[in-house]
Amino acid sequence: MLQRLTIIGVGLIGGSLARAARRGGAAREIVGWGQDLQQLRRAMELGVIDLAAPDLATALAGADIVVLATPVPAMGPLLAQMAGLLEDGMAVTDVGSVKGPVVQAARAALGARFGQFVPGHPIAGDERAGVEASRADLFQDHAVILTPGPDTDPAALAAVRRLWEAAGARVMELDADHHDRVLAATSHLPHALAYTLVDSLVGGADGEEILRYAAGGFRDFTRIASSNPAMWRDISLANRDHLLAVLRDFDAHLHRVMAMLEAGDAAALGEVFARAKAARDRFKR
Amino acid sequence: MLQRLTIIGVGLIGGSLARAARRGGAAREIVGWGQDLQQLRRAMELGVIDLAAPDLATALAGADIVVLATPVPAMGPLLAQMAGLLEDGMAVTDVGSVKGPVVQAARAALGARFGQFVPGHPIAGDERAGVEASRADLFQDHAVILTPGPDTDPAALAAVRRLWEAAGARVMELDADHHDRVLAATSHLPHALAYTLVDSLVGGADGEEILRYAAGGFRDFTRIASSNPAMWRDISLANRDHLLAVLRDFDAHLHRVMAMLEAGDAAALGEVFARAKAARDRFKR
Repeated sequence: MLQRLTIIGVGLIGGSLARAARRGGAAREIVGWGQDLQQLRRAMELGVIDLAAPDLATALAGADIVVLATPVPAMGPLLAQMAGLLEDGMAVTDVGSVKGPVVQAARAALGARFGQFVPGHPIAGDERAGVEASRADLFQDHAVILTPGPDTDPAALAAVRRLWEAAGARVMELDADHHDRVLAATSHLPHALAYTLVDSLVGGADGEEILRYAAGGFRDFTRIASSNPAMWRDISLANRDHLLAVLRDFDAHLHRVMAMLEAGDAAALGEVFARAKAARDRFKR
Repeated sequence: MLQRLTIIGVGLIGGSLARAARRGGAAREIVGWGQDLQQLRRAMELGVIDLAAPDLATALAGADIVVLATPVPAMGPLLAQMAGLLEDGMAVTDVGSVKGPVVQAARAALGARFGQFVPGHPIAGDERAGVEASRADLFQDHAVILTPGPDTDPAALAAVRRLWEAAGARVMELDADHHDRVLAATSHLPHALAYTLVDSLVGGADGEEILRYAAGGFRDFTRIASSNPAMWRDISLANRDHLLAVLRDFDAHLHRVMAMLEAGDAAALGEVFARAKAARDRFKR
């Protein structure tokens, strides 16, 4: 059991990890810190954290694991501030949806202590944000991808892995760049498409009217367009190269489908749709 | 109460309408007919229909309302077969997702009896198909769009409207071409994009692997790619012009978003995402 777990940024993800760690008996004491004092106070009121630290130094002092659960753009500056405050044996991890840029920032900021940093990404979320939406089972049976490198301290890696396992997650390891390529396809691309579709439709000639005739399929398809737009803007920009690559692949595929439609090529179109259904059904199982 | 309601094609939609009509006390007797004898037999076994007609003439004889619940491409030939069998006072309606081509086929097939045809489209479905998946509440609180024209017999329109209301649906009326334009945007476009996305991803370099790291957002976004591919191929082709128009709009918008990403234009990208979230949240309420 950890003596002290520190969460920087006690929102949906940070708050849910605190709740899950408590439920799983993973930490004796959970300390929170963050820029948003209202969130921090609310996290105390809800019993999500035991203590709201007054500053970063207090937050870090004596922590076994420090979890960065802030937006991705805040992580670089935060790691730079933390560099002088890390103690021996302290593990630092994050929950950012993009790993390459965070690893790069950690390497630059932490120097000789870079080995204490264990990059991580829980594949779980909710279109609602904030500590109010946090819940202990958010990670239950969800994947958490850790992306350690050759410099990563094995003890730090093991500690972070145990924390996520106590939260109910299935922990996997991937290379950071591989992670960013895969997540660009499965997560960042769908979000970009959903935002683009909704914006394209409501900006069109039929405007808002069309939403009146939309059904459940449309609702599911566009649910992720209700996610935090600033967060997804930041993730999209942080993973720009990989996201652009899958967007270009998708766009080329879309042009082929449009050409099939134009040509009235029922056989080719039916083949694309049937192949997609088969793949989607494999995913369902 | 209708003396006899006839359903041609007793699958998910036809079967659900039969169940809903029975629950709503809308018809004394429900007759089914269709090409798929196994479906028809199963519909009898499940009590969805009272009688499986041996042929189309028997199915139509004495019916107050005949519902075409077949795939869209089957409707033209079917209407041609039905032309000589229609009786005075009999209303014919359909459930096709595209209205323009069905109206055109009905006009060509039915001649002087074209006024008895009431084009319709229930905005409800399920990615599962067949009478086994049918249920009485499929249309409950869902929209059903009827697209009558100047030739439509008011008594036939009123009868079809009452049937859908008895099934729990909210009945609306739209011009057929307007319907096809709106549905291209809210339904046919999302399906085309979902199929294209899944096919694009599983055909890529990372192939099936990426599905291993996909989460709930991806699951919702691609659920409609589990729908019947032959049906959606037919709908896409039947509504080809409108679908291509919204696909081109979407593609142009996607190119603008890609350009924002390429330029690292956080302000513009954030604006698109925020506008989409606001629109999607309005839809949610």
